[in-house]
Amino acid sequence: MKNNRKSVSELATLVGGEIVGDGDILVDHVASLERAGEGAVAFIEDERTINRAEGCKASCLIVSKKISITFNSIIAVNHPKLAFALIAQHLHPKKRNDPSIDPTAIIHLNTKIDPTAFIGAYAEIGSDTTIGTHTEIHQAVSIGENVRIGSNCTIYPHVVIYDNVTIEDNVILHAGSIIGADGFGYVRSKQGYEKFPQLGTVIIEKDVEIGANTCIDRGALGTTRIGEGTKIDNLVQIGHNVEIGKRVVIAAQTGISGSTIIEDDAVIGGQVGMGDHARVERGAIIGSKAGILPGKIVRKGSVMWGVPVRPLDEYKRLNAYFGKLPQMHDEIKELKEQLKEILTKIETMDSKD
Amino acid sequence: MKNNRKSVSELATLVGGEIVGDGDILVDHVASLERAGEGAVAFIEDERTINRAEGCKASCLIVSKKISITFNSIIAVNHPKLAFALIAQHLHPKKRNDPSIDPTAIIHLNTKIDPTAFIGAYAEIGSDTTIGTHTEIHQAVSIGENVRIGSNCTIYPHVVIYDNVTIEDNVILHAGSIIGADGFGYVRSKQGYEKFPQLGTVIIEKDVEIGANTCIDRGALGTTRIGEGTKIDNLVQIGHNVEIGKRVVIAAQTGISGSTIIEDDAVIGGQVGMGDHARVERGAIIGSKAGILPGKIVRKGSVMWGVPVRPLDEYKRLNAYFGKLPQMHDEIKELKEQLKEILTKIETMDSKD
Amino acid sequence: MKNNRKSVSELATLVGGEIVGDGDILVDHVASLERAGEGAVAFIEDERTINRAEGCKASCLIVSKKISITFNSIIAVNHPKLAFALIAQHLHPKKRNDPSIDPTAIIHLNTKIDPTAFIGAYAEIGSDTTIGTHTEIHQAVSIGENVRIGSNCTIYPHVVIYDNVTIEDNVILHAGSIIGADGFGYVRSKQGYEKFPQLGTVIIEKDVEIGANTCIDRGALGTTRIGEGTKIDNLVQIGHNVEIGKRVVIAAQTGISGSTIIEDDAVIGGQVGMGDHARVERGAIIGSKAGILPGKIVRKGSVMWGVPVRPLDEYKRLNAYFGKLPQMHDEIKELKEQLKEILTKIETMDSKD
Repeated sequence: MKNNRKSVSELATLVGGEIVGDGDILVDHVASLERAGEGAVAFIEDERTINRAEGCKASCLIVSKKISITFNSIIAVNHPKLAFALIAQHLHPKKRNDPSIDPTAIIHLNTKIDPTAFIGAYAEIGSDTTIGTHTEIHQAVSIGENVRIGSNCTIYPHVVIYDNVTIEDNVILHAGSIIGADGFGYVRSKQGYEKFPQLGTVIIEKDVEIGANTCIDRGALGTTRIGEGTKIDNLVQIGHNVEIGKRVVIAAQTGISGSTIIEDDAVIGGQVGMGDHARVERGAIIGSKAGILPGKIVRKGSVMWGVPVRPLDEYKRLNAYFGKLPQMHDEIKELKEQLKEILTKIETMDSKD
Repeated sequence: MKNNRKSVSELATLVGGEIVGDGDILVDHVASLERAGEGAVAFIEDERTINRAEGCKASCLIVSKKISITFNSIIAVNHPKLAFALIAQHLHPKKRNDPSIDPTAIIHLNTKIDPTAFIGAYAEIGSDTTIGTHTEIHQAVSIGENVRIGSNCTIYPHVVIYDNVTIEDNVILHAGSIIGADGFGYVRSKQGYEKFPQLGTVIIEKDVEIGANTCIDRGALGTTRIGEGTKIDNLVQIGHNVEIGKRVVIAAQTGISGSTIIEDDAVIGGQVGMGDHARVERGAIIGSKAGILPGKIVRKGSVMWGVPVRPLDEYKRLNAYFGKLPQMHDEIKELKEQLKEILTKIETMDSKD
Repeated sequence: MKNNRKSVSELATLVGGEIVGDGDILVDHVASLERAGEGAVAFIEDERTINRAEGCKASCLIVSKKISITFNSIIAVNHPKLAFALIAQHLHPKKRNDPSIDPTAIIHLNTKIDPTAFIGAYAEIGSDTTIGTHTEIHQAVSIGENVRIGSNCTIYPHVVIYDNVTIEDNVILHAGSIIGADGFGYVRSKQGYEKFPQLGTVIIEKDVEIGANTCIDRGALGTTRIGEGTKIDNLVQIGHNVEIGKRVVIAAQTGISGSTIIEDDAVIGGQVGMGDHARVERGAIIGSKAGILPGKIVRKGSVMWGVPVRPLDEYKRLNAYFGKLPQMHDEIKELKEQLKEILTKIETMDSKD
């Protein structure tokens, strides 16, 4: 990876920030506050991290406009972490292979591979498949028949894409991810299980990133769809006919059963499980390890936790009461004893009359 | 995939159904009610989906004999979904590669590969390994030494099969599944952990299907066994020496620890965890996200839920009471106050005497 | 695998055990008590398994010095299971490929591959990468640029190692594991999510074993580290910047979020989830399926269970009370009715005055 070398003022312009101090200093990489040295840009996320900046040896700091700090060269912005991410993308451009098709790659009939694409060693590209401009297909990737892959995609080593899948522009598929394997559908017969047809497809829209060893099954009769700008972590399972909206975030090891719908801008934690035919409405947040029952609807913008999911406030309250169970149990016992005493007392009083 | 073209009456015969209306219409694919067009067979699962059939453009509908519906061409059966699955298998035969060994495949000494088998590009077949009739080994599959693979198997790209594993007929291994890696066994010593021997094997019986990126570890000293007709979803972990019976269904991301036994016809949800040396008896159903403690026995035919598992009825009841905890807590508080009042009252009355 | 053939007395010396009976018998493999036959060494773990030794046909038994048992040839030791593991390693040496670089392996510029290493078919080794003595790189393994791999490592088929990763001596990476993929970090912008830089690395220290299809993400700006002697099971997710100490054990399907620290000698069950920036102190034990909240500190040597984690004793007690919820609910109801009766009674008595 060759880094770019830029002046602080160029970078400030890039992120719409204000320069405080020296704008002519040249920087060529990003780093954490602790590790930053000469040529590095670091950032302070918020007030809480100001003290970590003390003694920082970075050449330039990105800070919030709200923060007052003394440093040789500062870019002041509204969102320091976002500015840092954008500057990092600028200083550390993605490593690119030269356009080429490795002589060991196996290209079947009737494919359309753009001359700007890179096809790595031992990859196999099935017939009737299209690969767009500047897309990189790495070592041993397996791409089936009639697959469409857009422009500027990075398909890391050992990805497997089954037949008839569509992948739009700027998609990143990390190593070992499997796109379009058969969904898990069977019908019980007298003898055992008969395979329900898994003849549908997968569409991955643009700007999606998918983690290592994640599996996205093809639709049974329809389509499994991952919406534009959605980010999925490692080891996630997406079942057949699932529809995931735009800009959804799904953390590692979450599993989503067949035909479930996740609407735009939802945020799903890690190790969440969703039953089939559920629906997570726009902007909802699902806590890690939560469980959503089949058919359940999680309302727009709600924050849900637990198994089965409840609103976070309720979940926290119930958990607090859960911790009081022994105390409640003892109180009930004591109440029973006191009542018994009172009854005796009353009977005594009664008999006195 | 070239589809077969059949008349409705041929298909009705295949599934033992009755033709209502036109039996001569030709169909060549299956589809969902919503997407079906000319040449398509669709099905109505039960009464609840009848209204979805309105305006359906399929050439033929499979319906339950119990349902009354008007349509141009109907196959009436006892189990519409099963008939649909069987007809789908008939109209959409599995794509088959011509028997061949790709020149890039690496075949070690003393293998027996049936001349009807297909060995894809960059596959490696270890010495003393046998591949049966019509079996397909796809791109870059890694098969160790002394492995036996039966007939009509499909081993998708990037599957890894370690040494000494046995795979019977009609088995499907989806992409990225790993069969026969070392089980997770160590013995603590003063210095750290010593590897316990992982010298056993894996036997996968006939008609098993295993999902993408699923891992099935070899036995430590014995055998890990997956019984006939069992279906396992993606990203499942099967530990060493686990024995899974016939026609078991295991959904995605479930993990089964060493030496646990799952008997025939059990149904296991997704993200279930089972401790070691547990036993799930015949026909039991384990709900998604359930946790089974080491050594636990789940009785024949029971339906279990939760962490740790309880009978579903009890689980539901306890969950309902869990939601009432704040109310119970308040009631106890109120009882305590009332009791206090009563005690005051009684003391007053007492002092009056 | 060719086994070694040794006398019982040689093996006794190896593990510091005492021979009881015949020390000259030759053995060449280990086996379980039930399957052991001529030439086999078996072991009795403790008193509970003594009866399983009855009729055992092994040539030699490893038993605890505390146990009294009659057998033709015995090695008596303090820790039979550990002795068995060590003897197994001795009788069943790891299968070794002859030093060689397969002609199909693709070796980029400026690599240093020790002449005693084995590089399998279709592997790809990136530029500036080093492979140590006696290390084995199996079929189709993908190794990036500037990777350092130590001596005596086994990298099973289809492992993917991204750029700039360091792997020390005696490391085993099972098939399909992915080391150094990008961590899951994004910053929300108006348009969607911007990728936070994932420019760090992974260091895997010596004597580590990592299971099949496990994913270990690279640090964002720093390092993800797996400490010496740590053992990680299949399908585990290790997030960016996680630091795992020495001799830690992590069972299958556990997920550890970014920047979390696990100190030496901790034991983590299966399907555990840990939020980011948590810390598990030295020697703590975390039960399977437990959930650790972000930022949580689990104290040194503690044993924690549940979601969210609580001390095991408390977890057990709360679970027991959880099962009593219906009874507690009924008791509260009854108390309310009794109180009502008492109030009526008191009013009656009061009115009598």
